Amino acid sequence: MERLRVAVIGTGFIGPVHAEAVRRNPGLAELTAIAGSSEEAAGEAAARLNVPFYSGDYRDVIAREDVDLVHICTPNYLHYPMAKDCLENGKHVLCEKPLAMTSAEARDLLRLAEAKNLKAAVNYNLRYYPMIQEIKSRNSKSPDGRIFALQGSYLQDWLLHETDYSWRMESKLSGKTRAVADIGTHWMDLAQYVTGLKIEKVLAQFGRMFETRRKSAGGRDHTFDRGGEKKPSDYTSYPVDTEDHAQILLSFEGGVLGNLTVSQVSAGYKNFMEYRQMGRDVSYSWNSEAPNRIKIGHRDQANEILMKDPGLLHSRAASMSAYPGGHQEGYGDTLKFILRDFYSDVLGRSVEGGASDYPTLQDGLAEMLLCEAIIKSAETGEWMEVGV
Amino acid sequence: MERLRVAVIGTGFIGPVHAEAVRRNPGLAELTAIAGSSEEAAGEAAARLNVPFYSGDYRDVIAREDVDLVHICTPNYLHYPMAKDCLENGKHVLCEKPLAMTSAEARDLLRLAEAKNLKAAVNYNLRYYPMIQEIKSRNSKSPDGRIFALQGSYLQDWLLHETDYSWRMESKLSGKTRAVADIGTHWMDLAQYVTGLKIEKVLAQFGRMFETRRKSAGGRDHTFDRGGEKKPSDYTSYPVDTEDHAQILLSFEGGVLGNLTVSQVSAGYKNFMEYRQMGRDVSYSWNSEAPNRIKIGHRDQANEILMKDPGLLHSRAASMSAYPGGHQEGYGDTLKFILRDFYSDVLGRSVEGGASDYPTLQDGLAEMLLCEAIIKSAETGEWMEVGV
Amino acid sequence: MERLRVAVIGTGFIGPVHAEAVRRNPGLAELTAIAGSSEEAAGEAAARLNVPFYSGDYRDVIAREDVDLVHICTPNYLHYPMAKDCLENGKHVLCEKPLAMTSAEARDLLRLAEAKNLKAAVNYNLRYYPMIQEIKSRNSKSPDGRIFALQGSYLQDWLLHETDYSWRMESKLSGKTRAVADIGTHWMDLAQYVTGLKIEKVLAQFGRMFETRRKSAGGRDHTFDRGGEKKPSDYTSYPVDTEDHAQILLSFEGGVLGNLTVSQVSAGYKNFMEYRQMGRDVSYSWNSEAPNRIKIGHRDQANEILMKDPGLLHSRAASMSAYPGGHQEGYGDTLKFILRDFYSDVLGRSVEGGASDYPTLQDGLAEMLLCEAIIKSAETGEWMEVGV
Amino acid sequence: MERLRVAVIGTGFIGPVHAEAVRRNPGLAELTAIAGSSEEAAGEAAARLNVPFYSGDYRDVIAREDVDLVHICTPNYLHYPMAKDCLENGKHVLCEKPLAMTSAEARDLLRLAEAKNLKAAVNYNLRYYPMIQEIKSRNSKSPDGRIFALQGSYLQDWLLHETDYSWRMESKLSGKTRAVADIGTHWMDLAQYVTGLKIEKVLAQFGRMFETRRKSAGGRDHTFDRGGEKKPSDYTSYPVDTEDHAQILLSFEGGVLGNLTVSQVSAGYKNFMEYRQMGRDVSYSWNSEAPNRIKIGHRDQANEILMKDPGLLHSRAASMSAYPGGHQEGYGDTLKFILRDFYSDVLGRSVEGGASDYPTLQDGLAEMLLCEAIIKSAETGEWMEVGV
Repeated sequence: MERLRVAVIGTGFIGPVHAEAVRRNPGLAELTAIAGSSEEAAGEAAARLNVPFYSGDYRDVIAREDVDLVHICTPNYLHYPMAKDCLENGKHVLCEKPLAMTSAEARDLLRLAEAKNLKAAVNYNLRYYPMIQEIKSRNSKSPDGRIFALQGSYLQDWLLHETDYSWRMESKLSGKTRAVADIGTHWMDLAQYVTGLKIEKVLAQFGRMFETRRKSAGGRDHTFDRGGEKKPSDYTSYPVDTEDHAQILLSFEGGVLGNLTVSQVSAGYKNFMEYRQMGRDVSYSWNSEAPNRIKIGHRDQANEILMKDPGLLHSRAASMSAYPGGHQEGYGDTLKFILRDFYSDVLGRSVEGGASDYPTLQDGLAEMLLCEAIIKSAETGEWMEVGV
Repeated sequence: MERLRVAVIGTGFIGPVHAEAVRRNPGLAELTAIAGSSEEAAGEAAARLNVPFYSGDYRDVIAREDVDLVHICTPNYLHYPMAKDCLENGKHVLCEKPLAMTSAEARDLLRLAEAKNLKAAVNYNLRYYPMIQEIKSRNSKSPDGRIFALQGSYLQDWLLHETDYSWRMESKLSGKTRAVADIGTHWMDLAQYVTGLKIEKVLAQFGRMFETRRKSAGGRDHTFDRGGEKKPSDYTSYPVDTEDHAQILLSFEGGVLGNLTVSQVSAGYKNFMEYRQMGRDVSYSWNSEAPNRIKIGHRDQANEILMKDPGLLHSRAASMSAYPGGHQEGYGDTLKFILRDFYSDVLGRSVEGGASDYPTLQDGLAEMLLCEAIIKSAETGEWMEVGV
Repeated sequence: MERLRVAVIGTGFIGPVHAEAVRRNPGLAELTAIAGSSEEAAGEAAARLNVPFYSGDYRDVIAREDVDLVHICTPNYLHYPMAKDCLENGKHVLCEKPLAMTSAEARDLLRLAEAKNLKAAVNYNLRYYPMIQEIKSRNSKSPDGRIFALQGSYLQDWLLHETDYSWRMESKLSGKTRAVADIGTHWMDLAQYVTGLKIEKVLAQFGRMFETRRKSAGGRDHTFDRGGEKKPSDYTSYPVDTEDHAQILLSFEGGVLGNLTVSQVSAGYKNFMEYRQMGRDVSYSWNSEAPNRIKIGHRDQANEILMKDPGLLHSRAASMSAYPGGHQEGYGDTLKFILRDFYSDVLGRSVEGGASDYPTLQDGLAEMLLCEAIIKSAETGEWMEVGV
Repeated sequence: MERLRVAVIGTGFIGPVHAEAVRRNPGLAELTAIAGSSEEAAGEAAARLNVPFYSGDYRDVIAREDVDLVHICTPNYLHYPMAKDCLENGKHVLCEKPLAMTSAEARDLLRLAEAKNLKAAVNYNLRYYPMIQEIKSRNSKSPDGRIFALQGSYLQDWLLHETDYSWRMESKLSGKTRAVADIGTHWMDLAQYVTGLKIEKVLAQFGRMFETRRKSAGGRDHTFDRGGEKKPSDYTSYPVDTEDHAQILLSFEGGVLGNLTVSQVSAGYKNFMEYRQMGRDVSYSWNSEAPNRIKIGHRDQANEILMKDPGLLHSRAASMSAYPGGHQEGYGDTLKFILRDFYSDVLGRSVEGGASDYPTLQDGLAEMLLCEAIIKSAETGEWMEVGV
């Protein structure tokens, strides 16, 4: 196969972002089909994005011969059934996170992919910031890279107001945890990926700013769409059963400490993820608002600010630097590179900058198991072991 | 009494800092005596600081008629006996933190001060950064200042290496917790002060980078003195029984969430304290490396950076701004202002910028109770109620 | 015409960046051809980027019927002849900056495009950072937006060492100014665009770190390729006749002051552009290392940090925000949006977020005239009027 | 003489700051007298600051036997006559900047001090930020510290509004330049001090936001007192004949380039001074809003952020670090250390951390000559040589 023929399911915020990322890998793939929640939505997207085929029914897309691989960019509760359908129809899958609603579902997908000998990935794309890769490379090469503790946050504010609404507010559609599953798993995936250490135990405390929220009767419900901008007229109340905010102590392999705060109600933090790693000799810190630099902390010499400059980075990080030093890479660029890795693996090609290590179904399952342990800990107030 | 006659006990790092702060309140106090751990140390300090009387025995200082108030700037295990002696000799006391080795000791001092009708303060001076005062004023005036969650850190690196030593490494001299008592209590005092909310429950996890450390036989042992600079010759090993790093979940009155990381082994963080407060409408964040500004986070408008400018601050914060907008105030200035408040109260004078609210023995006791609950939680892995 | 058929000439650093940006506008254009400096370079790029046609001779590309519009991404001395050929062959043109080697050449292109009724743009893409658009919108809407002074820098370090080499070092290939033409014109275009004010007079001072530099005999010569990485063996010396560093006072329409520093030899500044605008009521500042925020300075209230969040921006800036608040847009995204504007204009379509105002040949000419005045001023040490 | 007996003339903003700095050098000096513009002002200050003697006539203070050294903290036009009186009365002098109204006056003081064999200093205190000292030490020790270019700003906003008033607005009281003399000379003194290079030529452009301003009839006129806070009632208009904003190209010894922007009307910049030094191998940058760190820029390795940590600094910078690493030093601390240096020199004592090099009358004269050349250049639009 010379180029993968790719379909995208979903036309909300993230679907078109995936579609664009496909086009940014022109040597590896072409975009052949798109599916939406309605014929109209799909048609509009296909026209705007110049996609040859579209449908309001994702099964039409999956059934096509000119589709080798499917991106699933739909609400969480659809990930499992759609991924299952894809795999059963012989399509490779790239699924948005979280992979499923439960670890049982995730395990089922893992089994199926193996049985069918198909490749699958989960879109923990934040791994693909060049400076995250750089920390990972340094961790594996450091003579005394023994990691002692991690600290971090993932803070947003798009659900701050009582009238902010999205399908993510509905646990039936989104799952039993919200903030943790949606953004907390990004942090935990990244931490485990960068350090190579598994989280073994968790202790969590949840917070909810509103026990009851209001939504507009006919409101759109896209992620990041803000209720505050709607007319104040016909709102209906609904109970909230998922967390707005979580603080979680983490115990990694080998006793490494971790502390994570996750929030969707922290005013002024639009999409702020920070990662701090304290080690025996150096510390690293990175945050998503200034993603093209890391701070390297030293005790006996000046701290360093390493900027994204291909000439200063390890080879894999350099391979994810599309532009010269100082030219900022952004969120969209991470999608481009996760696709480069995943597609290369599906095509059996080698990847620029070293081995492909995109987030797999196994990684997606690991996050589901973490979510389940975190929920249980938040309910009991006790340390919980993470399932395997 | 026109001006208080003040003595300082202790000639290490913090004693002379106190002495200077006394001199920066010339309308309220004069420095009449200094005591050190030896005649020589006291004499040297007295000469350098031009103090009329000195002694190697603190009791000589306490016994003097021309001393109204005593600053206790000695290792932790001496706070209680010295404070007790001062109070029994009819002297007001300003004691370095932590107030004592146990809550029982702290209670004893509280009882004694009341019995003797003497004033006492504990040096949680970080309250006196103007921008911390500004957050406090905004919290009390906000129409919807309901606080939802707090997050913070206090990170240092001066104990990163195995050979770093200070008397604080010895639990006999420093107490059963180290990082938490030394710097964690600064954060917890500040959080409770700024929000007006008490911490009710804690869940802590401790980390120790080295189970055994080495110290140089004849090494000096001042805080922040680094073992790494000593000759590698004659070190002796000793077991470490206190924490280098702690991560603590906090539950404040009214269910407000809190999450604190404390460390003395985080490379590159010299003395980094950060405080983030998430509320229903705004968030505030402050850190000690850029203490003259706060970030005010908003959902529906631009975030704000409020800089220390007397013309833009509430009156009490403005009263702690010695210089015009943009001129940086530093660590030393907080000492000046805590003394201004405490001395004014002792003298029965009103304080510029509003009521004096320096940290009292009650506040010092509260921190001891917190330390005890945190130790117990770290041992059991369970949530612990904080004693009252 | 439904979609423009686009060709790219040039396969160095910036050519493939353009090619990708074409693909990110799938509703407006398709990429049909690519030309390189050799058959081999063009073929390699065509394979990697999956472009249907390629050639080592750009005239093959210009001659094609399935090419409506050509991107010129070659060394400066080729811009004029290639743009001329394109226009004469009836192709619209997007040319890299600077537009030409002299203002006479630029004027010739302007005349030709008008005569042929073709559209042309010059790639001053930095206008397309969303936050730059936001400043522009605020400038035009401000009740008292009177601008008083501008200050800025564009600093790089890729020519710091004596052995750093690129074709830009050769004035025959690059033009009579180097730092000013290459990066200074970016700043001046942006300043004039954002404020709507023309620069009328300039006073410049040039600096050269090395009068003679060395280049490796067979070295590659791409921009940002560093001499320091080459073998120290067979270097040859050559005289440098263009500036490494320039400081320029600018006088804008209406007496507005401007001050710009440009450098390619400022260690540690990879690609740092900063823009500060002081006005009667507010100041704005932006820099390219943190491009998704602006600082809004106030006298009588807190300063603001406005982050790229579509919900907080004016419509045109919002239309250039591909992702929700906090998700960083990068350098590559500016290319995408300049193409969106230019292609829409060529196709006669309306542009999302308001009128298209991409940099035209007129703007390209304006920069050439500025370069010429700056050179003359640097030679004479006197204020020079900018030609019209 | 064991300790200097010091008097302060001036009770406005900066006088009490000096008084406090005297008290922070208790081993070197004591404060014996204070003079104000009226008996009342002096009496109030003396009471508040606990100064034994005060007068509304500075000559009373100068005449005293128990005064060895006088601090002149009055409006600019009084510096020369008061300094002259002091020297003629045999008193050493520390004078606020700028030293005088003209270079002729400055020269006269220089002559007089030499004739009387008295010491004198000018308060360019910003030299005394520890990190400024660190850059200076690195400059003198660097194996290839050849400096290539300097860039900087000193921006304030306290005169942004038409009604902002201070005696500095009156050229009779303040001198022929305002922004340049008041804050620009701080930057130029610092640049010459840190690099050891003299400024030889200047080219300046001045800006004035208002040709006519208004002042309140009976308004107070302290620096940083803001007109905007006054009642809008009885204002009177007055013409402005000094600059609000200046941009200045500087040519240092050896052809080193310099570019400085100075402003008192840049909204949101309270007191922002930045210094950037580009060299052959590294760059340094520092700014007054984060004074306890410098950024060290590198081409071929990560940039560094060196924080004020005595253990990481050269000896002289370390000697100006009163607190351990990470504890912020502020504006007030610079005063303490300039006095330490000056007093030590007057007393003939050695200075901790190396030779005393406080700003002398010669340095004060150099700044007057710079101001005169800058004024002339702004008038003529031509490069001007700086007098010697």
